[in-house]
Amino acid sequence: MERVAFLGLGAMGAPMAANLLKAGVEVVVWNRSADRVKPLVEAGATAARSPREAAERVGRGGVVWTMLFDDAAVRAVADAVGDALGEGGVHISSSTIGPETGEALAAELATRGASYVAAPVLGKPDVAAAGKLIVMVSGPAGARERVKPLLEKIGSRTVDFGEGIQAHVVKLAGNFMLGAAIEAMAEAFTLGQKFGVDRKAMWEMFSETLFACPVYKAYGKLVAEEKYVPVGAPPALIRKDFGLILDAARRGQAPMPVASLVHDRLTAIVARGEDAGVDWASFANEVSRAAGV
Amino acid sequence: MERVAFLGLGAMGAPMAANLLKAGVEVVVWNRSADRVKPLVEAGATAARSPREAAERVGRGGVVWTMLFDDAAVRAVADAVGDALGEGGVHISSSTIGPETGEALAAELATRGASYVAAPVLGKPDVAAAGKLIVMVSGPAGARERVKPLLEKIGSRTVDFGEGIQAHVVKLAGNFMLGAAIEAMAEAFTLGQKFGVDRKAMWEMFSETLFACPVYKAYGKLVAEEKYVPVGAPPALIRKDFGLILDAARRGQAPMPVASLVHDRLTAIVARGEDAGVDWASFANEVSRAAGV
Amino acid sequence: MERVAFLGLGAMGAPMAANLLKAGVEVVVWNRSADRVKPLVEAGATAARSPREAAERVGRGGVVWTMLFDDAAVRAVADAVGDALGEGGVHISSSTIGPETGEALAAELATRGASYVAAPVLGKPDVAAAGKLIVMVSGPAGARERVKPLLEKIGSRTVDFGEGIQAHVVKLAGNFMLGAAIEAMAEAFTLGQKFGVDRKAMWEMFSETLFACPVYKAYGKLVAEEKYVPVGAPPALIRKDFGLILDAARRGQAPMPVASLVHDRLTAIVARGEDAGVDWASFANEVSRAAGV
Amino acid sequence: MERVAFLGLGAMGAPMAANLLKAGVEVVVWNRSADRVKPLVEAGATAARSPREAAERVGRGGVVWTMLFDDAAVRAVADAVGDALGEGGVHISSSTIGPETGEALAAELATRGASYVAAPVLGKPDVAAAGKLIVMVSGPAGARERVKPLLEKIGSRTVDFGEGIQAHVVKLAGNFMLGAAIEAMAEAFTLGQKFGVDRKAMWEMFSETLFACPVYKAYGKLVAEEKYVPVGAPPALIRKDFGLILDAARRGQAPMPVASLVHDRLTAIVARGEDAGVDWASFANEVSRAAGV
Repeated sequence: MERVAFLGLGAMGAPMAANLLKAGVEVVVWNRSADRVKPLVEAGATAARSPREAAERVGRGGVVWTMLFDDAAVRAVADAVGDALGEGGVHISSSTIGPETGEALAAELATRGASYVAAPVLGKPDVAAAGKLIVMVSGPAGARERVKPLLEKIGSRTVDFGEGIQAHVVKLAGNFMLGAAIEAMAEAFTLGQKFGVDRKAMWEMFSETLFACPVYKAYGKLVAEEKYVPVGAPPALIRKDFGLILDAARRGQAPMPVASLVHDRLTAIVARGEDAGVDWASFANEVSRAAGV
Repeated sequence: MERVAFLGLGAMGAPMAANLLKAGVEVVVWNRSADRVKPLVEAGATAARSPREAAERVGRGGVVWTMLFDDAAVRAVADAVGDALGEGGVHISSSTIGPETGEALAAELATRGASYVAAPVLGKPDVAAAGKLIVMVSGPAGARERVKPLLEKIGSRTVDFGEGIQAHVVKLAGNFMLGAAIEAMAEAFTLGQKFGVDRKAMWEMFSETLFACPVYKAYGKLVAEEKYVPVGAPPALIRKDFGLILDAARRGQAPMPVASLVHDRLTAIVARGEDAGVDWASFANEVSRAAGV
Repeated sequence: MERVAFLGLGAMGAPMAANLLKAGVEVVVWNRSADRVKPLVEAGATAARSPREAAERVGRGGVVWTMLFDDAAVRAVADAVGDALGEGGVHISSSTIGPETGEALAAELATRGASYVAAPVLGKPDVAAAGKLIVMVSGPAGARERVKPLLEKIGSRTVDFGEGIQAHVVKLAGNFMLGAAIEAMAEAFTLGQKFGVDRKAMWEMFSETLFACPVYKAYGKLVAEEKYVPVGAPPALIRKDFGLILDAARRGQAPMPVASLVHDRLTAIVARGEDAGVDWASFANEVSRAAGV
Repeated sequence: MERVAFLGLGAMGAPMAANLLKAGVEVVVWNRSADRVKPLVEAGATAARSPREAAERVGRGGVVWTMLFDDAAVRAVADAVGDALGEGGVHISSSTIGPETGEALAAELATRGASYVAAPVLGKPDVAAAGKLIVMVSGPAGARERVKPLLEKIGSRTVDFGEGIQAHVVKLAGNFMLGAAIEAMAEAFTLGQKFGVDRKAMWEMFSETLFACPVYKAYGKLVAEEKYVPVGAPPALIRKDFGLILDAARRGQAPMPVASLVHDRLTAIVARGEDAGVDWASFANEVSRAAGV
């Protein structure tokens, strides 16, 4: 069985690491704030005091798995990971980061004979806890095949996107499609409201028929009821993701006007300080405000 | 059992009228081009030579049901319908038309003691043939209750939106949400493509998970494969609908930037004459073109 | 010298009619609210009690000049004008109206042997009072030539745009360009402000160099100082104009995303009731609001 | 008289350095490609073989002036400049770069006791040759005052924007306003064209009246005639600038939808390879294409 160094025990990383432990994987864990480490240790993990120490514990040819906050956080541990892994090692990168970061890390690892496998996930913390994430994977064929058994321990489905860092782009595209669906519902429900249609009645019908799928059901409920608690993900965090989406769009020369729009709406609520304690779907309020309701 | 004058035997109207006949409703039919009438007569309908004649056949207090091309077509038969129905009559209006037309017709009928029931539908011709349309209904309570048994003969579900013409707005909102989903997928798949992601692989994953619903499955396939045949609805027709959506948004003072965007994309392909023989989802090509692919 | 029936004595029409009088033209005036009529009568005009009476006073082959609030107001007097003018008559139409209205009126007049000359103007009331308006003119060659001497009495410059109703489109395009310039300055000044640049300093430099022209000077001052009084034109009025612009864009199949944007901003302030007592340039506040300042 | 190291002798830098020489300033020049150096040497400049050598020639407390291609080019010489200048030195930075780069360079110089003065310019190469640039300046008061006599040698007007790097933002805002004006004219002229209005007639009228200023005259002519040669600035270069504008907008939390739109249009022509040999104003073609003309 593989031994894995798992870096990042946030709302997503902790249940992912826990599922690896449950499946019998030997796991060395590290987290920026130490209080997140204890439950994992109690579940059988070994604690490391630094990313470097964690990576060195799995050593040459080993596997380091990162689930961190953003591009900067992943870049911050990259040297330690690269130094430790060496020939044959694999870095499984599950954070929501931009393709540029992925490519830089992959190139750097390649110079040492190690591999970078992009493996971002779809699903919220409860889905992660249930081990039912959807895992998008891409990277060098050998490394990709090697880590698939590990990926299967945290998800119900692994979708393969090829040799490079494509999986990161697919993840960003998924977040974009989510935002676009929220915007679409906000515009549609607000139009209806102006003509006396009950937002919730409209949502119920569409989310049970043409749009009977998780996104329209879950996010649509928030938009229909205009209640943006509890917080799944805060506006500033997803605004960061839309920044990555637009950076990718710029680099790939692929205009995405709806992504620009959603980014601007998220910016507005963040700029006005209206993002505290609400889910990012609350950018739908900007649509209501523009309609005077 | 009700007797119904059914005006408009297009791709949607014909199967709707046929289902009424099957359910034992006595139906008088009229269509602008006579060739569409014969199959219905063979199925038991009575043919009328004009909207006026059809409406007069059901007469005072009767039910006229329209499923016509656009606002102008519905307005064109309104006088004949109004003259014939009188006190207690009901006009069931299933065409995709704007709230302004609906309100004008409702007001006019009200002066004669008749009622206007908005009853647009969701679903393509094959769904209509199967009698599984989703029917959105609104109008005066009494008339609405009276015609519900009729609506149930053409659909699997009737959703009630209240006293006025709201159902027309809900239908337009549905078409808008469809267009927004196509735009979102076009932007997402094109971004992916620029980074080496297979459009179809991306579509498959999303339409089986977060977006596992009819719209993303059916329209997503077109956008993923960039094949816009066969034609479900031509670009010029849905461009007309987006015109109605924007008219409603203007009147209701509800800005809908994504609706403006989709309208503009449809305009582009129509203006360049690229709309012949393709489904309206082909506006996704504009996204590809802007990305140089 | 021509005799002219002048309909509409608002902020623009009154000084235009006054300048005709000063130049020795015999003028019959009519206005919806009678209190605007008196000063013109004192200046030598003859008052009529209705558009029909005014038009009949100039009679067959005469000239009727309209400067009214909107398309509906012009359409409301069209029958009276058409009935009175007959063969050889000319309707000079200076209101800001859509090409569709212009074409309908022109077609109607043509059936009677009369001509429709579109002659909208650029300039505010003080410019009208000074007789320095810019007049855009289009219409049948003979009629156009006939009325040019009249147009020269109200303006400092007459620009010819051909045989049809083009001048109306040019006027709408001018209002659009104005709105686009306001939006551009609002975005630019707000960006600067976020980085500590004084809005007014930025405006001063640009309006004295690259953008040293009336629009950037006058409207830019409002946007820079964020003071939207006194009211040149209220938001709801110009929102109506942007509606005409978008209608023309739809009909002409010419996507205008910036026009959609400005229209939506005007809608927002009207929908929230923030349009009382402020100039339409106050839609620039929407840009500030989206930036949280 | 000051001695100045001038780095970057492109289309703008060369005439700027030449004007310094003409005014009697002692100038050490460097350029990436050596062929641009000779004319300046013939005019009295001293050539240096590297940025470091140039900076060292003016030495401690001296003045280095950069006019380079982009942020990366300025960052590439920053170390050499910083090492050489030391206490009391000043870096005059005239390149079109983002505020982030400016702030980083300013902070780095501050640690050595040197000052960063942002001094971007408005005007094309012929204006630079005539010494009539408009210079926007910001930076620490002492350094700013010290270099103003130098700035006056290359421009006809120096506008002061304060203590920080604001001048860079003002320059970006200027480029944005230019792009917005081009977009506005493209939309307006295309609308007119669809209704039979001559693009050039429309441009002439507006650029001689409401919009009688350099930008609408010069760029408007290109848009009206749809001739985008000769190349003032290539699309890819200004697309880079719009990238900086959007980066600044993101960082400053100031949504700029028109900037997003112009950026996307520039992306489209670059992505399709339609940007060779044409001025960046050619993005106006995207407006025509969307209208099918």
